[in-house]
Amino acid sequence: MSDLFIPTLLGTARKGRRSAAIAEALIDLMKQRSLMTDLIDVADYRLTATGDDAAGLDRYRELMAAADGLVIVAPEYNHGYPGELKLLLDSDFSAYARKPVGLVTVSSGRIGGARLAEQLRLLTTALRMVPVSPALHVVDAEQAVAEDGRLASPSLEQVAIDMLDEVVWFAEALAHARAA
Amino acid sequence: MSDLFIPTLLGTARKGRRSAAIAEALIDLMKQRSLMTDLIDVADYRLTATGDDAAGLDRYRELMAAADGLVIVAPEYNHGYPGELKLLLDSDFSAYARKPVGLVTVSSGRIGGARLAEQLRLLTTALRMVPVSPALHVVDAEQAVAEDGRLASPSLEQVAIDMLDEVVWFAEALAHARAA
Amino acid sequence: MSDLFIPTLLGTARKGRRSAAIAEALIDLMKQRSLMTDLIDVADYRLTATGDDAAGLDRYRELMAAADGLVIVAPEYNHGYPGELKLLLDSDFSAYARKPVGLVTVSSGRIGGARLAEQLRLLTTALRMVPVSPALHVVDAEQAVAEDGRLASPSLEQVAIDMLDEVVWFAEALAHARAA
Amino acid sequence: MSDLFIPTLLGTARKGRRSAAIAEALIDLMKQRSLMTDLIDVADYRLTATGDDAAGLDRYRELMAAADGLVIVAPEYNHGYPGELKLLLDSDFSAYARKPVGLVTVSSGRIGGARLAEQLRLLTTALRMVPVSPALHVVDAEQAVAEDGRLASPSLEQVAIDMLDEVVWFAEALAHARAA
Repeated sequence: MSDLFIPTLLGTARKGRRSAAIAEALIDLMKQRSLMTDLIDVADYRLTATGDDAAGLDRYRELMAAADGLVIVAPEYNHGYPGELKLLLDSDFSAYARKPVGLVTVSSGRIGGARLAEQLRLLTTALRMVPVSPALHVVDAEQAVAEDGRLASPSLEQVAIDMLDEVVWFAEALAHARAA
Repeated sequence: MSDLFIPTLLGTARKGRRSAAIAEALIDLMKQRSLMTDLIDVADYRLTATGDDAAGLDRYRELMAAADGLVIVAPEYNHGYPGELKLLLDSDFSAYARKPVGLVTVSSGRIGGARLAEQLRLLTTALRMVPVSPALHVVDAEQAVAEDGRLASPSLEQVAIDMLDEVVWFAEALAHARAA
Repeated sequence: MSDLFIPTLLGTARKGRRSAAIAEALIDLMKQRSLMTDLIDVADYRLTATGDDAAGLDRYRELMAAADGLVIVAPEYNHGYPGELKLLLDSDFSAYARKPVGLVTVSSGRIGGARLAEQLRLLTTALRMVPVSPALHVVDAEQAVAEDGRLASPSLEQVAIDMLDEVVWFAEALAHARAA
Repeated sequence: MSDLFIPTLLGTARKGRRSAAIAEALIDLMKQRSLMTDLIDVADYRLTATGDDAAGLDRYRELMAAADGLVIVAPEYNHGYPGELKLLLDSDFSAYARKPVGLVTVSSGRIGGARLAEQLRLLTTALRMVPVSPALHVVDAEQAVAEDGRLASPSLEQVAIDMLDEVVWFAEALAHARAA
């Protein structure tokens, strides 16, 4: 498992985004579990139109080409995904196929996030990725990360681990088959 | 019906976008039916992050505040909406409530567009708008607009008229009730 | 508002269904607010195939024809609607158009229900109904109804009232326009 | 590939269902490609409520337990799945996990089916299955099957083959990993 590379895509560029701390908590958790990861920050791309060829997209494409899977951390805005996340995901078709994706949704309320996960499942399947069934829904986002940078709730951390384990299971199974 | 204002939102900024000619055909059709409309072009806004306060958003907000309803013309990208359209729709919450919206989806293939309409129904309902049930799905987009600028298929034009009639029916019913 | 008829459709026939008590709580709340309602229990129909003409469907059709709107109370099963609810809603096309529908989802966990609401929005829009934007998501269903039969949480009851007010607003606006 | 067992689930019990001939065409195509399959006909179960323990469910559970994957053939009713299909899929949780599913949607019109595929992707992911990205959308269902029982359109048959190849690729990859 130690040689899998699973980048973590932070899917919002909104000022004051709470998803950033949650992405960092996920990255720490992945490293504890000997997964290689790297933060892909949607704010580094600044696309304004589908099909734009922004500076930096080469780097995004290289990371996705090297990836064995992906974790997406994103807030739910009006029951859907942030526009900036969609612009980035739509910018490349070459490297997604048959790789698993784990979904982490963020909501400042008590309900929410589950709708976004459904929309991201449809989007990532269209991109030929494999969204794993367990997803992490972070509600009450302000209280979600403790001072030490970990997820404040042990039960939430356990869901994160279950999701990551499923991503790893699929990453290994599909990497093996892609190489066959 | 002649005093209803229903702007037409062109929801893609992609180079070579075929939706532009389709939006123009819709605008012509609306004018023939004595509806006031105006093109809102997502390419005029160039947002890069949710919550950005781009130049021009005041104009968008004024148009939406004055609107009795909305027509959205957008292509389906990877089973969902263009990111630039989501960025614009998410930029304002003040003026959507209880106004109808008619959906026009554009696809270069034979299948497609229907998935986008479903996602736009969920998004616009989250924005408290009322998506009308009839929707116009333009497939084979290259052949969809004739040299005179009208929709090339009479049956497609009829669907457009049915959709517009439903938008008008709701615009009148809801404008009356909002004013009560 | 006192002459509006808004039946309440209980959308599961599963043994031990917790949604039944929640439907009763909604019915009490509607009566307090001078709304006429009636329980439509999906368990009374026992359809096994789309298009079946079961005994009792005439009664369902009469109730829907008389209705000014609808409230649906249903649990989320595997992120979607109960099959028995779909069979009943699909059994009739004549009486739904341009009537509002309010959605109450029920989940035994903390997450859930929001996905069902999205699917019911798409389904009811296909049926030409108007799903209102506010929805009531009842989580932790076992604790949701107090001994007196009311929703145990005052904040949940307030959401129910907001949803009902929106159904009433649309029921009046659309009934007026349908009669014009 | 010759020892994979991929049953074909016919997901409507409606009288005059056109999906039956399409399911048969798929079964023939699978056999030509040395896949073992078997028809699972939702009409054989006649469930009326979620959680019902109908006669015959043991047989369904055995087939699903033995399956390496699944093909679902179903018509789109009001933008969603048939209620009888949902009742059957919801009746068992034990045997779906980490198995691929290929989707064949049937519509009597020109648009349609794509919405159903999206809903089935969400449903089967909730069941922990892996919906493959290519899907077969059969429109104009009356003309879809030729007199010899094959899909009338060669291009449609090619899409069917692409979908089946993807199901097989995943069935092998995941069977191998489940056994590891």
